[in-house]
Amino acid sequence: MSRFKAGPLNNICDIKGIKVGHVTIDTENNKTGVTAIIPHEGNLFKEKLVCSSHVINGFGKSTGLIQIDELGQLETPIVLTNTLSVGDCYRGLLEYMLEDNEDIGDTTGTVNPVICECNDGYLNDIRSFAVKKEMVREAIENAKGDFEQGDIGAGKGMSCYGLKGGIGSSSRIIEVGNKSYNIGALVLTNFGRIEDLTIAGKKIACEKEGELEEDKGSIIVIIATDCPMSSRQLKRIAKRSSIGIHRTGSFTGNGSGEIAIAFSTANRIKHYEEEKIVNISMMNENHINDFFEATGDIVEEAIVNSLKYAKGVLGYKSHKRVSLEEYLRENNVSL
Amino acid sequence: MSRFKAGPLNNICDIKGIKVGHVTIDTENNKTGVTAIIPHEGNLFKEKLVCSSHVINGFGKSTGLIQIDELGQLETPIVLTNTLSVGDCYRGLLEYMLEDNEDIGDTTGTVNPVICECNDGYLNDIRSFAVKKEMVREAIENAKGDFEQGDIGAGKGMSCYGLKGGIGSSSRIIEVGNKSYNIGALVLTNFGRIEDLTIAGKKIACEKEGELEEDKGSIIVIIATDCPMSSRQLKRIAKRSSIGIHRTGSFTGNGSGEIAIAFSTANRIKHYEEEKIVNISMMNENHINDFFEATGDIVEEAIVNSLKYAKGVLGYKSHKRVSLEEYLRENNVSL
Amino acid sequence: MSRFKAGPLNNICDIKGIKVGHVTIDTENNKTGVTAIIPHEGNLFKEKLVCSSHVINGFGKSTGLIQIDELGQLETPIVLTNTLSVGDCYRGLLEYMLEDNEDIGDTTGTVNPVICECNDGYLNDIRSFAVKKEMVREAIENAKGDFEQGDIGAGKGMSCYGLKGGIGSSSRIIEVGNKSYNIGALVLTNFGRIEDLTIAGKKIACEKEGELEEDKGSIIVIIATDCPMSSRQLKRIAKRSSIGIHRTGSFTGNGSGEIAIAFSTANRIKHYEEEKIVNISMMNENHINDFFEATGDIVEEAIVNSLKYAKGVLGYKSHKRVSLEEYLRENNVSL
Amino acid sequence: MSRFKAGPLNNICDIKGIKVGHVTIDTENNKTGVTAIIPHEGNLFKEKLVCSSHVINGFGKSTGLIQIDELGQLETPIVLTNTLSVGDCYRGLLEYMLEDNEDIGDTTGTVNPVICECNDGYLNDIRSFAVKKEMVREAIENAKGDFEQGDIGAGKGMSCYGLKGGIGSSSRIIEVGNKSYNIGALVLTNFGRIEDLTIAGKKIACEKEGELEEDKGSIIVIIATDCPMSSRQLKRIAKRSSIGIHRTGSFTGNGSGEIAIAFSTANRIKHYEEEKIVNISMMNENHINDFFEATGDIVEEAIVNSLKYAKGVLGYKSHKRVSLEEYLRENNVSL
Repeated sequence: MSRFKAGPLNNICDIKGIKVGHVTIDTENNKTGVTAIIPHEGNLFKEKLVCSSHVINGFGKSTGLIQIDELGQLETPIVLTNTLSVGDCYRGLLEYMLEDNEDIGDTTGTVNPVICECNDGYLNDIRSFAVKKEMVREAIENAKGDFEQGDIGAGKGMSCYGLKGGIGSSSRIIEVGNKSYNIGALVLTNFGRIEDLTIAGKKIACEKEGELEEDKGSIIVIIATDCPMSSRQLKRIAKRSSIGIHRTGSFTGNGSGEIAIAFSTANRIKHYEEEKIVNISMMNENHINDFFEATGDIVEEAIVNSLKYAKGVLGYKSHKRVSLEEYLRENNVSL
Repeated sequence: MSRFKAGPLNNICDIKGIKVGHVTIDTENNKTGVTAIIPHEGNLFKEKLVCSSHVINGFGKSTGLIQIDELGQLETPIVLTNTLSVGDCYRGLLEYMLEDNEDIGDTTGTVNPVICECNDGYLNDIRSFAVKKEMVREAIENAKGDFEQGDIGAGKGMSCYGLKGGIGSSSRIIEVGNKSYNIGALVLTNFGRIEDLTIAGKKIACEKEGELEEDKGSIIVIIATDCPMSSRQLKRIAKRSSIGIHRTGSFTGNGSGEIAIAFSTANRIKHYEEEKIVNISMMNENHINDFFEATGDIVEEAIVNSLKYAKGVLGYKSHKRVSLEEYLRENNVSL
Repeated sequence: MSRFKAGPLNNICDIKGIKVGHVTIDTENNKTGVTAIIPHEGNLFKEKLVCSSHVINGFGKSTGLIQIDELGQLETPIVLTNTLSVGDCYRGLLEYMLEDNEDIGDTTGTVNPVICECNDGYLNDIRSFAVKKEMVREAIENAKGDFEQGDIGAGKGMSCYGLKGGIGSSSRIIEVGNKSYNIGALVLTNFGRIEDLTIAGKKIACEKEGELEEDKGSIIVIIATDCPMSSRQLKRIAKRSSIGIHRTGSFTGNGSGEIAIAFSTANRIKHYEEEKIVNISMMNENHINDFFEATGDIVEEAIVNSLKYAKGVLGYKSHKRVSLEEYLRENNVSL
Repeated sequence: MSRFKAGPLNNICDIKGIKVGHVTIDTENNKTGVTAIIPHEGNLFKEKLVCSSHVINGFGKSTGLIQIDELGQLETPIVLTNTLSVGDCYRGLLEYMLEDNEDIGDTTGTVNPVICECNDGYLNDIRSFAVKKEMVREAIENAKGDFEQGDIGAGKGMSCYGLKGGIGSSSRIIEVGNKSYNIGALVLTNFGRIEDLTIAGKKIACEKEGELEEDKGSIIVIIATDCPMSSRQLKRIAKRSSIGIHRTGSFTGNGSGEIAIAFSTANRIKHYEEEKIVNISMMNENHINDFFEATGDIVEEAIVNSLKYAKGVLGYKSHKRVSLEEYLRENNVSL
């Protein structure tokens, strides 16, 4: 399925320094949570990373994308949650950043919180605002150099291709000259109709017939690499995330908020830089195709992993999503 | 200064149905607040308006712009506040929308809250999160068909061209054939250096010399019209807001979040539309130039009005911004 | 492969009024040409169509896209050719438009020629400028309500997935309420590596191994519908063309100019409109998903058709591209 | 009018290596021509420059912008001409590039010609296609490290604010730390109404009254600097060119094609780069404000210079544009 080898963990933590943490809410009516991606182990506000974002379909409420595009920088962890909890997570991430940085909003400017979301309202009583702002700090403090996938964290209540979706991840190793680089994806999946689900080129469900469920929901794609890239190059990477989405069968429905963010850990941009002219490294663009190809591969695999790792969930109003495994068994389908 | 006559109020409420409300926080350390613009008197989620946004400079944290651009629709009031209160206002606006619409997040999708911000951290202890989510509802309930300008609502702690800025507004009447339309602007001003301030083509301060204060801060521009326009036409209107900004002297500094949102009250897009094909009216683009020209005029005048109406404020850490009136008097300058 | 029925011709001419014409150059060293798409049978400059464009990957030289995006209008036929013939076709299309419209550049403004291109330099001596400006008029005059596909017109020298590509087309019928609409695609294919080619979900070539040929080249996608849509809706359609591209296996290589243009024949915008306010119809966006899904289907099928209809070509420097049919036969693969 | 000192020439050739050349057509019916900007003295295709473009108003036909945006690179001289001569200049520039580079379109890919245009149809019989492709080479060969401004080259037939416009230029020196950098602008002016013309903050014409001439036409802005910048930074510079345009009074009319291109001569990107990872320098963005401010200043001054240097022209159909100097004298206005 891919010309490139997966990294040792086959997830986004194969990029050195990245950590991921979850807080999961799992009550009768609430299936939701928070997932935090920590891009490096230092002070991210003081040492920002080169970053870019791409809006595949803008039926979404993610915050922070405009400033990422203008400045090409990431200066906070990325927080994933449900659509109606964006405000609370925004506040929670702010509190975390302010505690770590006494200068923010005082002797220097403010900070740009990046909160991304999908609507888990089918399995989760989203109107009850179950996510509390303190959970952002908790997710960040939970973060480790490896993490669980599936129905966990922000993925707890998400549905994907009519099945139980959630958090998925994947990575690849790319050789450039005689050096190895890593590229990894983490996705929050909440989109698609069962009739469209395609795994490794194969449709999983039977013939489409009659009125289908609407393709709505959303997907958030976070891509990281340790290869040096400019924000323009990272935008090109972010755009290729749609390849992986399309390979799993979706046509990016009207109501689907599809957002990709790509960052590189290779260059750090100091908030209080003293040099007037700075040197940054970036890859020779004549060799970027392997990264483009791998982006399609990792996003595709990350989506499938979100399905593979998720267990079935019975949630709000007794709505139910079966797992991919259950679905395959019940329908006598093998991958 | 303008070929067009102002409307009777000379503010954005000259567009029928628009209301504006403020909540102001005025303590020793906190000079901040909330301003809400209600685009029409009905249920905005059920009857959306055609809308567009434009990012002049993306060093800003406003929410909701991505979905406005994808769908060309506005479905909530627009809330203005300080940068660190975006999350709380997001939550507050959600609560307001959810109470009014039991279907949101339950039988239909979620909602796209539009929160815009500037950083009032010079006069306001912005790190103390003085704005509470309940103030959004309060500002909406305070809204009337006319409103105060200057150091009020979200404008309480804002600084503009080194003076006290805040909320300003202006409007014009445009004749198209034998019909009259209105176009109005409301701005939240928090940008510029005194050395650049230009009123009616005239520099206000003396010669620039030595090291200048940085041009940072931000401006939010809300433009409304009752002339029917498509979202593409409204984006062209929104882009022209930079004309008014530039006429007052600014060069749109690196750290300035400059955002424009333009909407028309002429067509309503039903959330539960039953027709498969809908008819909308839009203006004949061969006649749009008067609206472009008037946009420059109203944004320029609204910025100047934010200075004219604001009184001097002594705030956090004894930081002080004098009013335009005081500055003119002290420096023996007449407009 | 698609939930929707093809139109009677299964090509873009299923949209009433559209005609397509070719001029083909087929000499020892030159395999190239011109293809013209005529969007309606009237005077297109005087009665423009609503239109939008989308740049999937901007390594391309197509003209006219900036004005399409600003005004949402198409006012000339769309001409396809090779990369180095853009200038000559630009001139040729201008001459055609000027002869038909004495007002252009005299009593009214100028005109926006839309020329799209791919690089056929592998099979064609592209440096010899074989395409002459007069061929634009010839292609337009050749245009009929049905047309040949494959290695013809602008497609004569194009390569796709290492095989002979060129012109392909496809269409679908979409029911909206009790009305039927058509949507069709015409593509000029010149991209991809044989190792990636995927037809109906199935890889055609054997395992990827060793150094692969670069994925460069380009694809131009023209989408037309008779369903009324705004330019914003058509941009969303144009964006979905990447679904079809990705389904055939490509990852949109660095050097690939991938451009989509979508127009609707339903509303005509008069150059000399006398009404100040115009009424246009557009589809209720809650029902747009079928068009999104069909866009993926027709672009995928049009690409495959460009391969199916093309015969093998031996061209410049004895470079050779075999046809899909030959490739399948030689490698004992069945679709 | 500016805090920054002009360079020794006060034009774009103050950036070392830049040359500008004109070819002017001056017959009874044809007032038009070609202007070429050579960004550096080497082989531009083999050593490209970092570049960005910005569309202020897209009612224009310039070519090459899409690839500049995707790759952030400039690889040809920039050619200015009239709207209907874009195709011929495209061909002419191709011939020049192909002669210099035998690999283009043969052993390597094609090349991205950048042709920008304004409509000089008022003074010039634009329908007669007076510009020949050979004139591109001629203009390039004419290019020197200093050049004439006003009614010359592509500027011969242009009108600006109802007066005679054309080519204008200006430059500034910016100190960054203890190093000096240069930034320069070259404009082709063809926009605006006399009633709006503002020089140094002062309206030149009397009160606006009655029906005004339409603000159509266009402006092309080319900005160059020797300060190292990324393509993202250069896009931010390009956006600031609207400041200078607005200061001279325009509101960017519906029919005005306003395009800005900004490039830096500091980094060269090799076409056949052998390093896998390259180092580039860019300025510390905390210090970019002086460049933003200077961009407004040089574009404003370049526009005014296009008026100051242009002599009155009597052209096609006896249409006449007086010079700024004549207008001031006739109306007893002093600057």
